Amino acid sequence: MKIAIDAMGGDYTPLVALQGGCEAARVFPDLELILVGQEALIRNLAEKKKIQIPKSVSFCEAEDVVEMKDSPVTALRKKKQSSIMVAADLVKNNEAHAVVTAGNTGAAVAATVLKWRLLPGISRPGIALPVAHHNGISVLMDVGANVEAKPSHFYNYAIMGKIYAESVLKMSDVRIGLLNVGEEEGKGSSEIKEIFNLFKKSYFNFIGNVEGRDIFNGKCDVIICDGFVGNIVLKVIEGVAGALFQLTKNEINKTFLSKLGAIFCLPAFKRLKRKVDQSEYGGAILLGVNGVCIIGHGSSDNRAVFNAIRVAREFVMHDINRKICKEIETNGSL
Amino acid sequence: MKIAIDAMGGDYTPLVALQGGCEAARVFPDLELILVGQEALIRNLAEKKKIQIPKSVSFCEAEDVVEMKDSPVTALRKKKQSSIMVAADLVKNNEAHAVVTAGNTGAAVAATVLKWRLLPGISRPGIALPVAHHNGISVLMDVGANVEAKPSHFYNYAIMGKIYAESVLKMSDVRIGLLNVGEEEGKGSSEIKEIFNLFKKSYFNFIGNVEGRDIFNGKCDVIICDGFVGNIVLKVIEGVAGALFQLTKNEINKTFLSKLGAIFCLPAFKRLKRKVDQSEYGGAILLGVNGVCIIGHGSSDNRAVFNAIRVAREFVMHDINRKICKEIETNGSL
Repeated sequence: MKIAIDAMGGDYTPLVALQGGCEAARVFPDLELILVGQEALIRNLAEKKKIQIPKSVSFCEAEDVVEMKDSPVTALRKKKQSSIMVAADLVKNNEAHAVVTAGNTGAAVAATVLKWRLLPGISRPGIALPVAHHNGISVLMDVGANVEAKPSHFYNYAIMGKIYAESVLKMSDVRIGLLNVGEEEGKGSSEIKEIFNLFKKSYFNFIGNVEGRDIFNGKCDVIICDGFVGNIVLKVIEGVAGALFQLTKNEINKTFLSKLGAIFCLPAFKRLKRKVDQSEYGGAILLGVNGVCIIGHGSSDNRAVFNAIRVAREFVMHDINRKICKEIETNGSL
Repeated sequence: MKIAIDAMGGDYTPLVALQGGCEAARVFPDLELILVGQEALIRNLAEKKKIQIPKSVSFCEAEDVVEMKDSPVTALRKKKQSSIMVAADLVKNNEAHAVVTAGNTGAAVAATVLKWRLLPGISRPGIALPVAHHNGISVLMDVGANVEAKPSHFYNYAIMGKIYAESVLKMSDVRIGLLNVGEEEGKGSSEIKEIFNLFKKSYFNFIGNVEGRDIFNGKCDVIICDGFVGNIVLKVIEGVAGALFQLTKNEINKTFLSKLGAIFCLPAFKRLKRKVDQSEYGGAILLGVNGVCIIGHGSSDNRAVFNAIRVAREFVMHDINRKICKEIETNGSL
């Protein structure tokens, strides 16, 4: 299996792409990794940092770099030789099975839709985010592929989220919830009420409206929302977690006794960090395009890139797109 | 100053309303508290729990109870003698200066709009939520009064949030941010782009788009969003915080050493809890109606009710509605 890594997109690339890719090559002997980007620059970096590049890691030249601030349109029109465009081309030409990127999300969505097209029956792609909590994992979708989602797009997300939960997360009888401002039927905007009715009449195991707090309690498996709300929620989660860790640190540092106590708690804090650390989950998954694309956080470190590669490998192995197509053939779409 | 307490709305009323009201009466000698609800029931409870009712606490009978699941329409049409309706009437008839409720938010908004009407120049009310973080306090608005906000409503929220931050939180040169999926101009739905342009041309100190994480870093003072997004965000904040505390507890309880360490950290954890505990902030503030209404969390305890009363007292003292009207007279509205 071959996985193309967008080695230039993201805050800490190409270094973390190089490190994460090399580690994945060592851990997964069945993988070939292709670093897509400025080869000379990356080879120089490897030399400087004394990173041994395994044989299963190769390069594919891409001279342009999409910046985080670039609009998807700019990325597509003016940077045709960008790492994300070239990586998407590799999959299109059957030279790779999946793309991993920590770069500009909008550009990744635009490039893969342009190059790969959408799956039959899917009218808009969506980004699924696995969220870990003390009762397991929930999937939040869409977290930012499409900020003006129509009811039919919500329906698409529910199909894709269901298949993701079934095939990769091994859930059965997947419970679908609609993110809303209250649990009761009749809550929310007129569009949300329309979607509620659509879901109610569908073949989904639809448990009704869920609220923001239900993302973290296992009340349902897949939580559907539009990309505007989902992206804000994603960043609120990061923000709250960061703020709480900072506040805890400030309070603990105030006395000697609590500093000492914190030393005793260190292993517990480390396990906690590992549990909530998004870099352990390999980022979000772009679903609906005719290919596999894993989108890591812009601030991905080498561990996050490694995990994104691990997740990409799982998605290819589980042949999720074929399962989505089969689901739509059997149950229809909107 | 007289404050009417909706003694029947909320998960733990009337007990917490009684306790919080009695405590406020003891702490603030300038206040008269009116418990609005089923007097016999509350008096019985006071006797059973051996709660001494101070002289400055009186009763006002209201036989109906609005449940959390009731729609605002049901509450208004079928429960005309509910505690929130009667409490709103007290302010309307100049028998009280403010209302405090931990009940159904939709019913509180509907009752106060019906009885008090809106301030001149305001077309929709909004709920402002103060959020504490390590850099101070930010105000998020609207967190659920209006789930289908138009651009002019966003403009109203910015005016009201600005005055709240200036007069109660004592901020100057209040920085206004628009909650969006990215910082760059041009991000978000077409409606959000329209609002961005509206704010850009306004007299506000508009710092542009902000993201979910910026609620917790002090990047701006007032963050504007529609009630659908704001209400989901509010509950996500609760959810993440709760989930993190639970996960931390689980990890700490795994070994004897970390349990011991946690004992040393207990004072720090307690200070932390106090800092992030919403009940310390007295809940959210309904702005735009011609009166003062503080809306506590449905699960408010006596401490939360006490703090909501404290906040209501501040709002009356600061005469915030007069300041909002003056701001609109000077700078116009939409």
